[in-house]
Amino acid sequence: MARVVVDVMLKPEILDPQGQAVADALPRLGISEVASVRIGRRVEIEFTGEADLERAREIADKLLANPVIEDFAVSAPQEGPAA
Amino acid sequence: MARVVVDVMLKPEILDPQGQAVADALPRLGISEVASVRIGRRVEIEFTGEADLERAREIADKLLANPVIEDFAVSAPQEGPAA
Amino acid sequence: MARVVVDVMLKPEILDPQGQAVADALPRLGISEVASVRIGRRVEIEFTGEADLERAREIADKLLANPVIEDFAVSAPQEGPAA
Amino acid sequence: MARVVVDVMLKPEILDPQGQAVADALPRLGISEVASVRIGRRVEIEFTGEADLERAREIADKLLANPVIEDFAVSAPQEGPAA
Repeated sequence: MARVVVDVMLKPEILDPQGQAVADALPRLGISEVASVRIGRRVEIEFTGEADLERAREIADKLLANPVIEDFAVSAPQEGPAA
Repeated sequence: MARVVVDVMLKPEILDPQGQAVADALPRLGISEVASVRIGRRVEIEFTGEADLERAREIADKLLANPVIEDFAVSAPQEGPAA
Repeated sequence: MARVVVDVMLKPEILDPQGQAVADALPRLGISEVASVRIGRRVEIEFTGEADLERAREIADKLLANPVIEDFAVSAPQEGPAA
Repeated sequence: MARVVVDVMLKPEILDPQGQAVADALPRLGISEVASVRIGRRVEIEFTGEADLERAREIADKLLANPVIEDFAVSAPQEGPAA
């Protein structure tokens, strides 16, 4: 088994009200050194065999991200001994 | 400005129906080598000064993750020249 | 075509940090009369024929809600002339 | 205490890949009478006094919905005896 991670974030020019809400709530916690917060999705895909970045990209294209409003990045994290 | 990333995922023992839906939809796309899909949140926090992992952890504890059902991991990605 | 709506909310005893963040951000907007905010999912299912609440419940059970942490409610909104 | 509900959905012309994934997974469950699935957010705001639809609309505008990609609707559900 091998994991591929797909990170899906709103494009930078798209407003993220949920991230904004978190940022706006920070001063009440005494936290003032944060400029912005953006909330996206992290999708972990476990492959039965080898990590297949190309396949993961295809899945992201079709079922995980909306290309009009979101960007995504695909990566295969090195976690301990190679899978 | 320096970015800290907080990855929030449902604990492994908690069912993730949205990830399950994606996994169940894959065979129709001709994709059969995926064992599971889990969908969580990726939160990008931009600090005005240096990346502060301890602060990010505090924010995650209070405003980003529910410790009963979710785990989170905090990291400061190395992207190009050090921030 | 007929629509069925499935509302999925975290159970009342489960902390909702994203809703909490919104609630915590309100005083900065000058809003003080809100006791709590909870954020869930609203799923709109369009049936090709008649609205089928039983089917919608089955879909919710299997693909939309996690019964350990979430409750859901199924309804067929009356919107203008019957669909 | 009185509840106001804000339903936030992607605009109809914006693709919803998560809803699409649920729709694509249905045939494997033997369900074929669904034309589409759209997944949005349902936000429950509890007011300390009376339900204030105007306030809820303001909160939605600023912290819950992105007007470029999402529509929202505000309502005060009648649940049992008036709040």
